[in-house]
Amino acid sequence: MDTARPPAHAAAQPDAPVTAGLSPSEWGCVTLVGAGPGDAELLTLKAARVLASARVVLYDNLVSDDVLRQIPQDAERIYVGKQSSNHTLPQEGIIELMVRLAKAGKSLVRLKGGDPYIFGRGGEEAEALIAEGIACETVPGISAAQGASASTGIPLTHRDHTGMLVFATGHLQGEGEERSVALDWAALARPRQTVVIYMGVGTLPVICAKLVEHGLPGHTPAALVERATRPDQRAIVGTLETLPALSVKHGVHPPALIMIGDTVSLQERIGGPALR
Amino acid sequence: MDTARPPAHAAAQPDAPVTAGLSPSEWGCVTLVGAGPGDAELLTLKAARVLASARVVLYDNLVSDDVLRQIPQDAERIYVGKQSSNHTLPQEGIIELMVRLAKAGKSLVRLKGGDPYIFGRGGEEAEALIAEGIACETVPGISAAQGASASTGIPLTHRDHTGMLVFATGHLQGEGEERSVALDWAALARPRQTVVIYMGVGTLPVICAKLVEHGLPGHTPAALVERATRPDQRAIVGTLETLPALSVKHGVHPPALIMIGDTVSLQERIGGPALR
Repeated sequence: MDTARPPAHAAAQPDAPVTAGLSPSEWGCVTLVGAGPGDAELLTLKAARVLASARVVLYDNLVSDDVLRQIPQDAERIYVGKQSSNHTLPQEGIIELMVRLAKAGKSLVRLKGGDPYIFGRGGEEAEALIAEGIACETVPGISAAQGASASTGIPLTHRDHTGMLVFATGHLQGEGEERSVALDWAALARPRQTVVIYMGVGTLPVICAKLVEHGLPGHTPAALVERATRPDQRAIVGTLETLPALSVKHGVHPPALIMIGDTVSLQERIGGPALR
Repeated sequence: MDTARPPAHAAAQPDAPVTAGLSPSEWGCVTLVGAGPGDAELLTLKAARVLASARVVLYDNLVSDDVLRQIPQDAERIYVGKQSSNHTLPQEGIIELMVRLAKAGKSLVRLKGGDPYIFGRGGEEAEALIAEGIACETVPGISAAQGASASTGIPLTHRDHTGMLVFATGHLQGEGEERSVALDWAALARPRQTVVIYMGVGTLPVICAKLVEHGLPGHTPAALVERATRPDQRAIVGTLETLPALSVKHGVHPPALIMIGDTVSLQERIGGPALR
Protein backbone atom coordinates (compact mmCIF):
# COMPACT_ATOMS: atom_id res chain seq x y z
CA MET A 1 0.00 0.00 0.00
CA ASP A 2 1.20 3.47 -0.78
CA THR A 3 1.93 5.45 2.33
CA ALA A 4 1.51 9.12 3.15
CA ARG A 5 3.12 11.49 0.68
CA PRO A 6 5.40 13.23 0.24
CA PRO A 7 8.11 11.39 2.18
CA ALA A 8 10.82 13.54 3.76
CA HIS A 9 13.34 13.04 0.95
CA ALA A 10 10.89 13.95 -1.74
CA ALA A 11 9.84 17.53 -1.10
CA ALA A 12 9.34 19.69 -4.16
CA GLN A 13 12.29 22.00 -4.66
CA PRO A 14 11.04 24.87 -6.77
CA ASP A 15 13.65 27.19 -5.26
CA ALA A 16 16.69 24.96 -5.75
CA PRO A 17 19.71 27.00 -6.83
CA VAL A 18 20.68 26.83 -10.47
CA THR A 19 24.08 26.90 -12.14
CA ALA A 20 23.54 29.80 -14.50
CA GLY A 21 24.90 30.39 -17.92
CA LEU A 22 25.39 26.95 -19.43
CA SER A 23 25.27 26.82 -23.20
CA PRO A 24 22.42 24.83 -24.76
CA SER A 25 24.81 22.00 -25.65
CA GLU A 26 25.46 21.54 -21.93
CA TRP A 27 21.77 21.43 -20.98
CA GLY A 28 20.28 18.20 -19.71
CA CYS A 29 17.49 16.37 -21.49
CA VAL A 30 14.14 15.20 -20.18
CA THR A 31 12.71 11.70 -20.59
CA LEU A 32 8.98 11.47 -19.99
CA VAL A 33 8.49 7.92 -18.75
CA GLY A 34 5.23 6.03 -18.38
CA ALA A 35 5.26 4.34 -14.97
CA GLY A 36 2.35 2.08 -15.86
CA PRO A 37 -0.64 1.35 -13.62
CA GLY A 38 1.17 0.25 -10.45
CA ASP A 39 2.78 -3.20 -10.70
CA ALA A 40 6.47 -2.47 -11.40
CA GLU A 41 6.63 -5.55 -13.65
CA LEU A 42 4.38 -3.64 -16.05
CA LEU A 43 7.11 -1.07 -16.71
CA THR A 44 8.51 -1.47 -20.20
CA LEU A 45 12.10 -2.69 -20.53
CA LYS A 46 12.94 0.78 -21.83
CA ALA A 47 11.31 2.55 -18.87
CA ALA A 48 13.15 0.25 -16.47
CA ARG A 49 16.46 0.93 -18.21
CA VAL A 50 15.94 4.72 -18.17
CA LEU A 51 14.89 4.62 -14.53
CA ALA A 52 17.84 2.46 -13.48
CA SER A 53 20.29 5.10 -14.69
CA ALA A 54 18.30 8.15 -13.56
CA ARG A 55 20.05 10.85 -11.55
CA VAL A 56 17.03 13.13 -10.97
CA VAL A 57 13.43 11.87 -11.00
CA LEU A 58 10.30 14.05 -10.81
CA TYR A 59 7.21 12.00 -9.96
CA ASP A 60 3.63 12.51 -8.92
CA ASN A 61 1.21 10.67 -6.70
CA LEU A 62 -0.13 8.24 -9.31
CA VAL A 63 3.25 6.51 -9.39
CA SER A 64 3.15 3.45 -7.12
CA ASP A 65 5.64 2.70 -4.36
CA ASP A 66 6.50 -0.50 -6.23
CA VAL A 67 7.70 1.62 -9.17
CA LEU A 68 9.42 4.22 -6.96
CA ARG A 69 11.54 1.40 -5.52
CA GLN A 70 13.11 1.02 -8.99
CA ILE A 71 14.72 4.48 -8.69
CA PRO A 72 18.40 4.21 -7.70
CA GLN A 73 19.00 4.93 -4.01
CA ASP A 74 21.37 7.80 -4.74
CA ALA A 75 19.17 9.53 -7.32
CA GLU A 76 17.49 12.80 -6.40
CA ARG A 77 13.71 12.40 -6.09
CA ILE A 78 11.42 15.36 -6.50
CA TYR A 79 7.76 14.94 -5.60
CA VAL A 80 5.54 17.17 -7.74
CA GLY A 81 2.38 15.27 -6.92
CA LYS A 82 -0.99 16.31 -8.09
CA GLN A 83 -4.23 15.37 -6.46
CA SER A 84 -7.38 16.57 -8.12
CA SER A 85 -7.95 19.51 -5.79
CA ASN A 86 -4.62 19.75 -3.99
CA HIS A 87 -1.80 20.38 -6.40
CA THR A 88 1.61 20.34 -4.71
CA LEU A 89 2.93 22.27 -7.69
CA PRO A 90 0.66 23.62 -10.40
CA GLN A 91 1.38 22.33 -13.91
CA GLU A 92 3.19 25.56 -14.84
CA GLY A 93 5.44 25.20 -11.79
CA ILE A 94 6.38 21.65 -12.75
CA ILE A 95 7.35 22.79 -16.22
CA GLU A 96 9.35 25.77 -14.88
CA LEU A 97 11.19 23.48 -12.47
CA MET A 98 12.09 21.03 -15.25
CA VAL A 99 13.28 23.86 -17.51
CA ARG A 100 15.45 25.30 -14.73
CA LEU A 101 17.00 21.94 -13.83
CA ALA A 102 17.65 20.97 -17.46
CA LYS A 103 19.24 24.36 -18.18
CA ALA A 104 21.44 23.78 -15.12
CA GLY A 105 22.79 20.70 -16.90
CA LYS A 106 20.71 18.04 -15.18
CA SER A 107 19.14 15.26 -17.21
CA LEU A 108 15.76 14.41 -15.78
CA VAL A 109 13.34 11.52 -15.73
CA ARG A 110 9.77 12.73 -15.52
CA LEU A 111 7.87 9.73 -14.20
CA LYS A 112 4.12 9.73 -14.79
CA GLY A 113 1.47 7.18 -13.83
CA GLY A 114 0.17 5.16 -16.79
CA ASP A 115 1.11 6.51 -20.23
CA PRO A 116 2.43 10.10 -20.42
CA TYR A 117 0.33 10.78 -23.53
CA ILE A 118 -2.99 9.42 -22.18
CA PHE A 119 -4.44 11.96 -19.71
CA GLY A 120 -0.92 12.47 -18.36
CA ARG A 121 -0.28 16.03 -19.59
CA GLY A 122 2.85 14.65 -21.23
CA GLY A 123 1.95 16.53 -24.40
CA GLU A 124 1.89 19.85 -22.57
CA GLU A 125 5.23 19.14 -20.91
CA ALA A 126 6.94 17.95 -24.11
CA GLU A 127 5.63 20.99 -25.99
CA ALA A 128 6.89 23.42 -23.34
CA LEU A 129 10.30 21.76 -22.97
CA ILE A 130 10.94 21.61 -26.70
CA ALA A 131 9.86 25.25 -27.06
CA GLU A 132 12.65 26.07 -24.58
CA GLY A 133 15.14 24.13 -26.69
CA ILE A 134 15.38 21.22 -24.26
CA ALA A 135 15.65 17.74 -25.79
CA CYS A 136 12.76 15.54 -24.76
CA GLU A 137 11.95 11.89 -25.37
CA THR A 138 8.82 9.96 -24.37
CA VAL A 139 8.61 6.32 -23.28
CA PRO A 140 5.05 4.98 -23.40
CA GLY A 141 3.53 3.10 -20.47
CA ILE A 142 0.75 0.62 -19.84
CA SER A 143 -2.29 2.78 -19.16
CA ALA A 144 -4.47 2.06 -16.13
CA ALA A 145 -7.27 0.83 -18.39
CA GLN A 146 -4.98 -1.83 -19.83
CA GLY A 147 -3.74 -2.92 -16.44
CA ALA A 148 -7.28 -3.10 -15.10
CA SER A 149 -8.45 -4.97 -18.18
CA ALA A 150 -5.82 -7.71 -18.00
CA SER A 151 -5.95 -8.13 -14.25
CA THR A 152 -9.73 -8.22 -13.86
CA GLY A 153 -10.67 -10.11 -17.03
CA ILE A 154 -12.58 -7.30 -18.74
CA PRO A 155 -11.33 -7.16 -22.35
CA LEU A 156 -11.32 -3.61 -23.72
CA THR A 157 -12.65 -4.79 -27.08
CA HIS A 158 -14.43 -7.96 -28.20
CA ARG A 159 -15.88 -8.67 -31.63
CA ASP A 160 -19.17 -9.90 -30.19
CA HIS A 161 -19.71 -6.82 -28.03
CA THR A 162 -17.79 -3.77 -29.22
CA GLY A 163 -16.53 -1.94 -32.24
CA MET A 164 -14.90 0.96 -30.42
CA LEU A 165 -12.99 1.77 -27.27
CA VAL A 166 -13.33 5.20 -25.65
CA PHE A 167 -11.20 6.77 -22.90
CA ALA A 168 -12.43 9.88 -21.07
CA THR A 169 -11.84 11.62 -17.74
CA GLY A 170 -14.52 12.21 -15.14
CA HIS A 171 -12.93 14.88 -13.00
CA LEU A 172 -14.71 18.13 -12.28
CA GLN A 173 -13.90 21.10 -14.48
CA GLY A 174 -14.45 24.81 -13.88
CA GLU A 175 -14.48 26.81 -10.64
CA GLY A 176 -16.64 26.89 -7.51
CA GLU A 177 -20.35 26.32 -8.05
CA GLU A 178 -19.79 26.12 -11.80
CA ARG A 179 -17.81 22.91 -11.37
CA SER A 180 -19.24 20.05 -13.39
CA VAL A 181 -18.30 17.01 -15.42
CA ALA A 182 -17.97 18.30 -18.97
CA LEU A 183 -18.20 15.22 -21.16
CA ASP A 184 -19.70 14.50 -24.56
CA TRP A 185 -22.50 12.37 -23.10
CA ALA A 186 -24.12 11.63 -26.46
CA ALA A 187 -20.85 10.13 -27.70
CA LEU A 188 -20.26 8.15 -24.51
CA ALA A 189 -23.81 6.76 -24.49
CA ARG A 190 -23.59 5.08 -27.88
CA PRO A 191 -24.04 1.30 -28.03
CA ARG A 192 -21.39 -1.30 -28.89
CA GLN A 193 -18.41 0.41 -27.32
CA THR A 194 -16.36 -0.01 -24.17
CA VAL A 195 -16.01 3.26 -22.26
CA VAL A 196 -13.28 3.72 -19.65
CA ILE A 197 -13.46 6.81 -17.46
CA TYR A 198 -10.35 7.85 -15.58
CA MET A 199 -10.55 9.92 -12.40
CA GLY A 200 -14.31 9.50 -12.11
CA VAL A 201 -14.88 8.04 -8.64
CA GLY A 202 -15.98 11.35 -7.17
CA THR A 203 -18.42 12.01 -9.99
CA LEU A 204 -19.65 8.43 -10.48
CA PRO A 205 -23.33 9.15 -9.70
CA VAL A 206 -23.41 12.00 -12.23
CA ILE A 207 -21.66 9.89 -14.86
CA CYS A 208 -24.04 6.93 -14.49
CA ALA A 209 -27.13 9.15 -14.46
CA LYS A 210 -26.03 11.12 -17.53
CA LEU A 211 -25.28 8.00 -19.53
CA VAL A 212 -28.74 6.59 -18.78
CA GLU A 213 -30.33 9.97 -19.54
CA HIS A 214 -28.57 9.91 -22.93
CA GLY A 215 -29.81 6.46 -23.85
CA LEU A 216 -27.74 3.67 -22.35
CA PRO A 217 -29.92 1.07 -20.59
CA GLY A 218 -29.66 1.13 -16.78
CA HIS A 219 -28.71 -2.56 -16.89
CA THR A 220 -25.56 -1.83 -18.96
CA PRO A 221 -22.70 -3.68 -17.24
CA ALA A 222 -20.33 -1.34 -15.40
CA ALA A 223 -17.36 -1.86 -13.10
CA LEU A 224 -15.06 0.07 -10.82
CA VAL A 225 -11.44 -1.03 -10.62
CA GLU A 226 -9.64 0.48 -7.64
CA ARG A 227 -5.81 0.52 -7.55
CA ALA A 228 -5.51 -1.56 -10.71
CA THR A 229 -2.66 -4.12 -10.76
CA ARG A 230 -1.56 -3.26 -7.20
CA PRO A 231 -1.56 -5.94 -4.49
CA ASP A 232 -4.72 -4.44 -2.98
CA GLN A 233 -6.61 -4.05 -6.27
CA ARG A 234 -10.39 -4.38 -6.00
CA ALA A 235 -12.93 -4.90 -8.79
CA ILE A 236 -16.56 -3.99 -8.15
CA VAL A 237 -18.98 -5.17 -10.83
CA GLY A 238 -22.55 -4.00 -11.32
CA THR A 239 -24.57 -1.94 -13.76
CA LEU A 240 -25.00 1.77 -14.47
CA GLU A 241 -27.96 1.63 -12.08
CA THR A 242 -26.25 -0.18 -9.22
CA LEU A 243 -22.63 0.99 -9.39
CA PRO A 244 -22.96 4.28 -7.44
CA ALA A 245 -24.45 2.47 -4.44
CA LEU A 246 -21.89 -0.34 -4.72
CA SER A 247 -19.12 2.26 -4.69
CA VAL A 248 -20.42 3.70 -1.42
CA LYS A 249 -21.01 0.24 0.05
CA HIS A 250 -17.44 -0.87 -0.65
CA GLY A 251 -15.86 2.51 0.14
CA VAL A 252 -14.05 2.94 -3.18
CA HIS A 253 -11.35 5.63 -3.26
CA PRO A 254 -9.14 7.03 -6.04
CA PRO A 255 -7.22 5.97 -7.98
CA ALA A 256 -10.01 3.99 -9.63
CA LEU A 257 -11.35 3.52 -13.13
CA ILE A 258 -14.92 3.15 -14.35
CA MET A 259 -15.42 0.59 -17.14
CA ILE A 260 -18.75 0.56 -18.97
CA GLY A 261 -20.15 -1.70 -21.69
CA ASP A 262 -21.05 -5.27 -22.54
CA THR A 263 -17.41 -6.40 -22.28
CA VAL A 264 -17.76 -5.91 -18.51
CA SER A 265 -20.15 -8.88 -18.52
CA LEU A 266 -17.17 -11.11 -19.43
CA GLN A 267 -15.49 -10.42 -16.07
CA GLU A 268 -17.40 -13.22 -14.39
CA ARG A 269 -16.28 -15.75 -17.00
CA ILE A 270 -12.67 -14.59 -17.57
CA GLY A 271 -11.62 -12.95 -14.33
CA GLY A 272 -11.31 -13.97 -10.74
CA PRO A 273 -13.75 -13.15 -7.94
CA ALA A 274 -15.09 -9.59 -7.87
CA LEU A 275 -17.16 -7.60 -5.42
CA ARG A 276 -20.78 -7.19 -6.44
CA MET B 1 12.62 -5.15 -41.52
CA ASP B 2 10.41 -8.17 -41.07
CA THR B 3 11.06 -10.80 -43.67
CA ALA B 4 8.80 -13.26 -45.47
CA ARG B 5 6.66 -15.38 -43.19
CA PRO B 6 6.31 -18.04 -42.01
CA PRO B 7 9.91 -19.24 -41.64
CA ALA B 8 10.53 -22.98 -41.95
CA HIS B 9 10.62 -23.65 -38.21
CA ALA B 10 7.38 -21.84 -37.60
CA ALA B 11 4.73 -23.73 -39.57
CA ALA B 12 1.35 -24.06 -37.91
CA GLN B 13 0.93 -27.54 -36.54
CA PRO B 14 -2.78 -28.11 -36.21
CA ASP B 15 -2.34 -31.87 -36.61
CA ALA B 16 0.43 -32.33 -34.05
CA PRO B 17 -0.06 -35.54 -32.07
CA VAL B 18 -1.42 -35.18 -28.59
CA THR B 19 -0.69 -37.12 -25.43
CA ALA B 20 -4.21 -38.15 -24.53
CA GLY B 21 -5.79 -38.65 -21.20
CA LEU B 22 -4.03 -36.24 -18.85
CA SER B 23 -6.03 -35.13 -15.84
CA PRO B 24 -6.89 -31.41 -15.63
CA SER B 25 -4.26 -30.91 -12.92
CA GLU B 26 -1.62 -31.98 -15.46
CA TRP B 27 -2.81 -29.61 -18.18
CA GLY B 28 -0.65 -26.67 -19.20
CA CYS B 29 -1.70 -23.07 -18.80
CA VAL B 30 -1.81 -20.29 -21.39
CA THR B 31 -0.32 -16.82 -20.95
CA LEU B 32 -1.67 -14.25 -23.40
CA VAL B 33 1.20 -11.80 -23.79
CA GLY B 34 1.12 -8.36 -25.37
CA ALA B 35 4.14 -8.08 -27.67
CA GLY B 36 3.80 -4.31 -27.96
CA PRO B 37 4.07 -2.32 -31.19
CA GLY B 38 7.40 -3.61 -32.50
CA ASP B 39 10.44 -2.29 -30.57
CA ALA B 40 11.34 -5.14 -28.19
CA GLU B 41 12.31 -2.59 -25.52
CA LEU B 42 8.61 -1.75 -25.29
CA LEU B 43 7.83 -5.22 -23.94
CA THR B 44 6.90 -5.04 -20.27
CA LEU B 45 9.28 -6.59 -17.76
CA LYS B 46 6.61 -9.22 -17.12
CA ALA B 47 6.20 -10.04 -20.82
CA ALA B 48 9.99 -10.34 -21.18
CA ARG B 49 10.17 -12.65 -18.16
CA VAL B 50 7.35 -14.88 -19.42
CA LEU B 51 8.86 -14.99 -22.90
CA ALA B 52 12.36 -15.82 -21.61
CA SER B 53 11.07 -19.00 -19.96
CA ALA B 54 8.62 -19.98 -22.70
CA ARG B 55 8.70 -23.54 -24.05
CA VAL B 56 5.98 -23.17 -26.72
CA VAL B 57 5.07 -19.84 -28.33
CA LEU B 58 2.16 -19.21 -30.70
CA TYR B 59 2.50 -15.92 -32.56
CA ASP B 60 0.99 -14.06 -35.44
CA ASN B 61 2.28 -11.69 -38.08
CA LEU B 62 1.89 -8.47 -36.11
CA VAL B 63 4.68 -9.59 -33.78
CA SER B 64 7.96 -7.98 -34.90
CA ASP B 65 11.17 -9.87 -35.60
CA ASP B 66 12.77 -7.82 -32.82
CA VAL B 67 10.33 -9.36 -30.33
CA LEU B 68 10.57 -12.86 -31.85
CA ARG B 69 14.31 -12.77 -31.16
CA GLN B 70 13.47 -12.72 -27.43
CA ILE B 71 12.04 -16.25 -27.65
CA PRO B 72 14.54 -18.84 -26.40
CA GLN B 73 16.32 -20.69 -29.23
CA ASP B 74 15.11 -24.08 -28.06
CA ALA B 75 11.46 -23.10 -27.60
CA GLU B 76 8.90 -24.42 -30.05
CA ARG B 77 7.49 -21.63 -32.26
CA ILE B 78 4.12 -21.98 -33.90
CA TYR B 79 3.10 -19.40 -36.48
CA VAL B 80 -0.65 -18.86 -36.52
CA GLY B 81 -0.43 -15.59 -38.44
CA LYS B 82 -3.43 -13.69 -39.54
CA GLN B 83 -3.50 -11.23 -42.37
CA SER B 84 -6.76 -9.46 -43.00
CA SER B 85 -7.83 -11.65 -45.91
CA ASN B 86 -5.40 -14.57 -45.63
CA HIS B 87 -5.75 -16.36 -42.34
CA THR B 88 -3.14 -19.07 -41.85
CA LEU B 89 -5.41 -20.57 -39.23
CA PRO B 90 -8.90 -19.25 -38.60
CA GLN B 91 -9.54 -17.98 -35.08
CA GLU B 92 -11.39 -21.18 -34.16
CA GLY B 93 -8.42 -23.24 -35.33
CA ILE B 94 -6.02 -21.24 -33.16
CA ILE B 95 -8.21 -21.80 -30.11
CA GLU B 96 -8.56 -25.54 -30.87
CA LEU B 97 -4.80 -25.85 -31.24
CA MET B 98 -4.18 -24.11 -27.91
CA VAL B 99 -6.74 -26.29 -26.15
CA ARG B 100 -5.19 -29.45 -27.58
CA LEU B 101 -1.65 -28.46 -26.63
CA ALA B 102 -2.61 -27.34 -23.11
CA LYS B 103 -4.56 -30.55 -22.53
CA ALA B 104 -1.44 -32.44 -23.64
CA GLY B 105 0.36 -30.82 -20.72
CA LYS B 106 2.12 -28.01 -22.57
CA SER B 107 2.18 -24.53 -21.09
CA LEU B 108 1.90 -21.97 -23.86
CA VAL B 109 2.72 -18.35 -24.49
CA ARG B 110 0.26 -16.78 -26.89
CA LEU B 111 2.11 -13.74 -28.22
CA LYS B 112 -0.02 -11.01 -29.77
CA GLY B 113 0.96 -7.71 -31.34
CA GLY B 114 0.12 -4.70 -29.16
CA ASP B 115 -2.20 -5.41 -26.22
CA PRO B 116 -4.14 -8.72 -26.25
CA TYR B 117 -7.30 -6.97 -25.06
CA ILE B 118 -7.26 -4.10 -27.60
CA PHE B 119 -8.37 -5.46 -30.99
CA GLY B 120 -6.28 -8.55 -30.30
CA ARG B 121 -9.08 -11.10 -29.87
CA GLY B 122 -7.50 -11.90 -26.51
CA GLY B 123 -10.94 -11.78 -24.91
CA GLU B 124 -12.26 -14.46 -27.25
CA GLU B 125 -9.27 -16.69 -26.60
CA ALA B 126 -9.33 -16.25 -22.82
CA GLU B 127 -13.07 -16.95 -22.77
CA ALA B 128 -12.71 -20.15 -24.80
CA LEU B 129 -9.71 -21.44 -22.86
CA ILE B 130 -11.29 -20.84 -19.47
CA ALA B 131 -14.53 -22.50 -20.66
CA GLU B 132 -12.40 -25.59 -21.36
CA GLY B 133 -11.00 -25.45 -17.84
CA ILE B 134 -7.56 -24.24 -18.93
CA ALA B 135 -5.85 -21.67 -16.69
CA CYS B 136 -5.19 -18.45 -18.53
CA GLU B 137 -3.41 -15.23 -17.58
CA THR B 138 -3.06 -12.02 -19.58
CA VAL B 139 -0.08 -9.66 -19.68
CA PRO B 140 -0.96 -6.28 -21.18
CA GLY B 141 1.18 -4.67 -23.87
CA ILE B 142 1.86 -1.22 -25.27
CA SER B 143 -0.72 -0.79 -27.99
CA ALA B 144 0.35 0.44 -31.43
CA ALA B 145 -1.40 3.78 -30.82
CA GLN B 146 0.77 4.38 -27.76
CA GLY B 147 3.97 3.42 -29.54
CA ALA B 148 3.08 5.65 -32.49
CA SER B 149 2.14 8.49 -30.17
CA ALA B 150 5.39 8.50 -28.21
CA SER B 151 7.64 7.95 -31.19
CA THR B 152 6.08 10.52 -33.54
CA GLY B 153 5.20 13.26 -31.02
CA ILE B 154 1.42 13.06 -31.38
CA PRO B 155 -0.04 13.02 -27.84
CA LEU B 156 -3.19 10.91 -27.62
CA THR B 157 -4.85 13.47 -25.34
CA HIS B 158 -4.15 17.13 -24.61
CA ARG B 159 -6.22 19.47 -22.46
CA ASP B 160 -6.20 22.20 -25.09
CA HIS B 161 -7.41 19.93 -27.87
CA THR B 162 -9.21 16.83 -26.67
CA GLY B 163 -11.48 15.48 -24.00
CA MET B 164 -11.70 11.93 -25.30
CA LEU B 165 -9.61 9.27 -27.00
CA VAL B 166 -11.27 6.76 -29.34
CA PHE B 167 -9.82 3.55 -30.78
CA ALA B 168 -11.57 1.80 -33.69
CA THR B 169 -10.67 -0.63 -36.48
CA GLY B 170 -10.96 0.15 -40.16
CA HIS B 171 -10.88 -3.31 -41.68
CA LEU B 172 -13.59 -4.48 -44.05
CA GLN B 173 -16.42 -6.50 -42.58
CA GLY B 174 -18.94 -8.80 -44.27
CA GLU B 175 -18.59 -10.96 -47.37
CA GLY B 176 -18.00 -10.33 -51.10
CA GLU B 177 -19.69 -7.27 -52.54
CA GLU B 178 -21.29 -6.55 -49.17
CA ARG B 179 -17.89 -5.85 -47.66
CA SER B 180 -17.70 -2.41 -46.08
CA VAL B 181 -16.25 -0.46 -43.19
CA ALA B 182 -18.89 -0.69 -40.49
CA LEU B 183 -18.07 2.12 -38.08
CA ASP B 184 -20.14 4.49 -35.98
CA TRP B 185 -19.27 7.50 -38.14
CA ALA B 186 -21.36 9.95 -36.13
CA ALA B 187 -19.41 9.05 -32.99
CA LEU B 188 -16.04 9.19 -34.73
CA ALA B 189 -16.81 12.58 -36.32
CA ARG B 190 -17.38 14.42 -33.07
CA PRO B 191 -15.09 17.34 -32.24
CA ARG B 192 -12.48 17.53 -29.47
CA GLN B 193 -11.35 13.92 -29.55
CA THR B 194 -8.37 12.02 -30.87
CA VAL B 195 -9.40 9.07 -33.03
CA VAL B 196 -6.99 6.23 -33.77
CA ILE B 197 -8.01 3.71 -36.40
CA TYR B 198 -6.18 0.38 -36.48
CA MET B 199 -6.00 -1.69 -39.67
CA GLY B 200 -7.37 1.10 -41.83
CA VAL B 201 -4.77 1.62 -44.55
CA GLY B 202 -6.78 -0.25 -47.17
CA THR B 203 -9.94 1.67 -46.40
CA LEU B 204 -8.36 5.09 -45.75
CA PRO B 205 -10.21 6.93 -48.56
CA VAL B 206 -13.58 5.67 -47.28
CA ILE B 207 -12.71 6.57 -43.69
CA CYS B 208 -11.63 10.13 -44.53
CA ALA B 209 -14.64 10.72 -46.78
CA LYS B 210 -17.12 9.38 -44.22
CA LEU B 211 -15.69 11.50 -41.41
CA VAL B 212 -16.01 14.66 -43.53
CA GLU B 213 -19.51 13.63 -44.62
CA HIS B 214 -20.45 13.31 -40.93
CA GLY B 215 -19.17 16.73 -40.01
CA LEU B 216 -15.43 16.85 -39.40
CA PRO B 217 -13.76 19.69 -41.34
CA GLY B 218 -11.62 18.51 -44.26
CA HIS B 219 -8.69 20.41 -42.75
CA THR B 220 -8.78 18.27 -39.57
CA PRO B 221 -5.18 17.16 -38.95
CA ALA B 222 -4.64 13.47 -39.72
CA ALA B 223 -1.59 11.22 -39.85
CA LEU B 224 -0.57 7.75 -40.91
CA VAL B 225 2.05 5.96 -38.85
CA GLU B 226 3.50 2.96 -40.64
CA ARG B 227 5.40 0.27 -38.66
CA ALA B 228 5.27 2.29 -35.43
CA THR B 229 8.39 2.07 -33.22
CA ARG B 230 10.25 -0.17 -35.70
CA PRO B 231 13.55 0.98 -37.22
CA ASP B 232 11.80 1.75 -40.51
CA GLN B 233 8.84 3.63 -38.98
CA ARG B 234 7.38 6.38 -41.15
CA ALA B 235 4.98 9.16 -40.16
CA ILE B 236 2.93 10.87 -42.86
CA VAL B 237 1.11 14.01 -41.71
CA GLY B 238 -1.69 15.79 -43.55
CA THR B 239 -5.41 16.37 -43.19
CA LEU B 240 -8.54 14.30 -43.77
CA GLU B 241 -8.60 15.84 -47.26
CA THR B 242 -4.98 15.19 -48.18
CA LEU B 243 -4.11 11.94 -46.38
CA PRO B 244 -5.47 9.43 -48.94
CA ALA B 245 -3.33 10.95 -51.73
CA LEU B 246 -0.30 11.18 -49.40
CA SER B 247 -0.73 7.49 -48.57
CA VAL B 248 -0.58 6.59 -52.26
CA LYS B 249 2.30 8.99 -52.91
CA HIS B 250 4.41 7.48 -50.14
CA GLY B 251 3.30 3.88 -50.75
CA VAL B 252 2.09 3.18 -47.22
CA HIS B 253 1.51 -0.48 -46.37
CA PRO B 254 0.13 -2.26 -43.28
CA PRO B 255 0.74 -2.38 -40.44
CA ALA B 256 -0.15 1.30 -40.10
CA LEU B 257 -2.38 3.41 -37.91
CA ILE B 258 -4.52 6.42 -38.77
CA MET B 259 -4.50 9.21 -36.16
CA ILE B 260 -7.10 11.98 -36.48
CA GLY B 261 -7.71 15.15 -34.49
CA ASP B 262 -6.15 18.43 -33.41
CA THR B 263 -3.46 16.64 -31.36
CA VAL B 264 -1.93 15.60 -34.71
CA SER B 265 -1.05 19.28 -35.24
CA LEU B 266 1.43 18.98 -32.35
CA GLN B 267 3.58 16.51 -34.31
CA GLU B 268 5.50 19.31 -36.00
CA ARG B 269 6.37 20.92 -32.65
CA ILE B 270 7.00 17.80 -30.53
CA GLY B 271 8.15 15.15 -32.99
CA GLY B 272 10.95 14.73 -35.45
CA PRO B 273 10.70 15.15 -39.22
CA ALA B 274 7.66 13.62 -40.89
CA LEU B 275 6.60 13.06 -44.49
CA ARG B 276 4.00 15.52 -45.72
